[in-house]
Amino acid sequence: MKISIQGQKASYSHIAANQLFGEDIELMERDNFTDVFEDLNKKKVDAIVIPIENSTYGSIYQNYDNLTKYNFKIVAEIYLKINFHLIAHPGVKIEDIEEIHTHPVGMAQIQSFLKENPQINAIQYEDTAGAVKMIREKHLMHAAAAASRFAADFYEMEILKEDIHENPKNYTRFYALKNNGDIVLFKQGQQDKTTIEFLLGEESGSLYKSLRSFADRDISLTKIESRPIIGTDWEYRFYLDIMAGEEEEKLKNALNELKAYAREIKIIGSYKNGETINT
Amino acid sequence: MKISIQGQKASYSHIAANQLFGEDIELMERDNFTDVFEDLNKKKVDAIVIPIENSTYGSIYQNYDNLTKYNFKIVAEIYLKINFHLIAHPGVKIEDIEEIHTHPVGMAQIQSFLKENPQINAIQYEDTAGAVKMIREKHLMHAAAAASRFAADFYEMEILKEDIHENPKNYTRFYALKNNGDIVLFKQGQQDKTTIEFLLGEESGSLYKSLRSFADRDISLTKIESRPIIGTDWEYRFYLDIMAGEEEEKLKNALNELKAYAREIKIIGSYKNGETINT
Repeated sequence: MKISIQGQKASYSHIAANQLFGEDIELMERDNFTDVFEDLNKKKVDAIVIPIENSTYGSIYQNYDNLTKYNFKIVAEIYLKINFHLIAHPGVKIEDIEEIHTHPVGMAQIQSFLKENPQINAIQYEDTAGAVKMIREKHLMHAAAAASRFAADFYEMEILKEDIHENPKNYTRFYALKNNGDIVLFKQGQQDKTTIEFLLGEESGSLYKSLRSFADRDISLTKIESRPIIGTDWEYRFYLDIMAGEEEEKLKNALNELKAYAREIKIIGSYKNGETINT
Repeated sequence: MKISIQGQKASYSHIAANQLFGEDIELMERDNFTDVFEDLNKKKVDAIVIPIENSTYGSIYQNYDNLTKYNFKIVAEIYLKINFHLIAHPGVKIEDIEEIHTHPVGMAQIQSFLKENPQINAIQYEDTAGAVKMIREKHLMHAAAAASRFAADFYEMEILKEDIHENPKNYTRFYALKNNGDIVLFKQGQQDKTTIEFLLGEESGSLYKSLRSFADRDISLTKIESRPIIGTDWEYRFYLDIMAGEEEEKLKNALNELKAYAREIKIIGSYKNGETINT
């Protein structure tokens, strides 16, 4: 199975891909999300795994726009709890560490650790897993990276100190997308979820009425997102995450009612709710 | 009156500031939004003018987060229709032009013009108005900028060709924020608008019920935005733009009902709807 991700080997996207499709996948590592979506568009891969939102930084809007631009199906989701560990060569002691390398976003999460350890210099690196790889390849014995347990294991390095990050609740949510066809997943939850997109009708109160279609049937929504539609006078496309499967009668009825208040309704995918995995 | 903006003189933020507060303002030009908000926080300025969303690119999320972080009041809004004109030294003819300078976002808007004029090289510049200034100061007689009419006038340059952009509907919406106190505005609409923020209650369907508070009273909503709350398990803060003034009885009643389904409700500002200005 061939999977395309944005990022390097041992990145968080790689962890998400392994959790969903197993460790036996062939990974395509891309620099940007457009290349990842084009890999699937040109059928170079069987599926792609992309981040869709982070609980600290918000939605990855480019990927919402890509969901609309490409007609792929969401086949799975997974949540990663983003932990940062202090990673160095085996045998290195914490008092040997003179510098720590990680991505700026990671660096922002370990400010208390840096204050408690003023002898350690903070050096920005383009990628968290890449920092582990670089320290290994350059045999840096006085440097550490702040990265995931998976990155430590993948590059056969050692965790000197666990959980050096501050915000204890920092999660990233990933979608797996496919062109079509069935899929065998390794990890997934029990509950059915469906993601749809739509434009609002002209009638006033149409967002409220759209949501009523679900509320009247006790269907929970876990997320609402909106994106402007290019070339319109402030019209938005809405994205809803719905706690129901597309085959369920109550969701079919809700979507049928929704047609009265919304247009261009599209089911982007129906899948099992994702588990949350520690990293 | 002292106003802080992100950007240079003759930028779109400058246009917005002039439209709202007149041409007699003293402008503080800042590199980033944090500096702009800190100017008002430290009372270095009387007001700030910030973009909040663009109809092509979406919300400026950093500024939604800043609305919550700082307790400023929205006192006005204004919409700019973003037009790009071909601007050069007076007397220069279109057939003299060998290169065009503008911001990457502007460049993306003039791709057809560039295709029709393959003899003109596209050169990226950090700022649209800044490109006009640079061409003037360097006396470049074979170069043009793609920028606003205001930038042409401000730097005493000439428009060789109007409206060279593609997407005919590209708008940016700006807020003016103050600490407190009354304000005299030059341009504003007739209708009252109010912007609020809130967190949802625990009850299921609480977003739908929150919106019902307004729909039941025929109060229109023009925008809904959500941002994740740091350190929570996927909780969001919602922002609503409401077509009603905060002193109107129907809005007071709606906000009173909203308390049953939402918490941390805050009125960020009540102001007149903004006019749309050509640039």
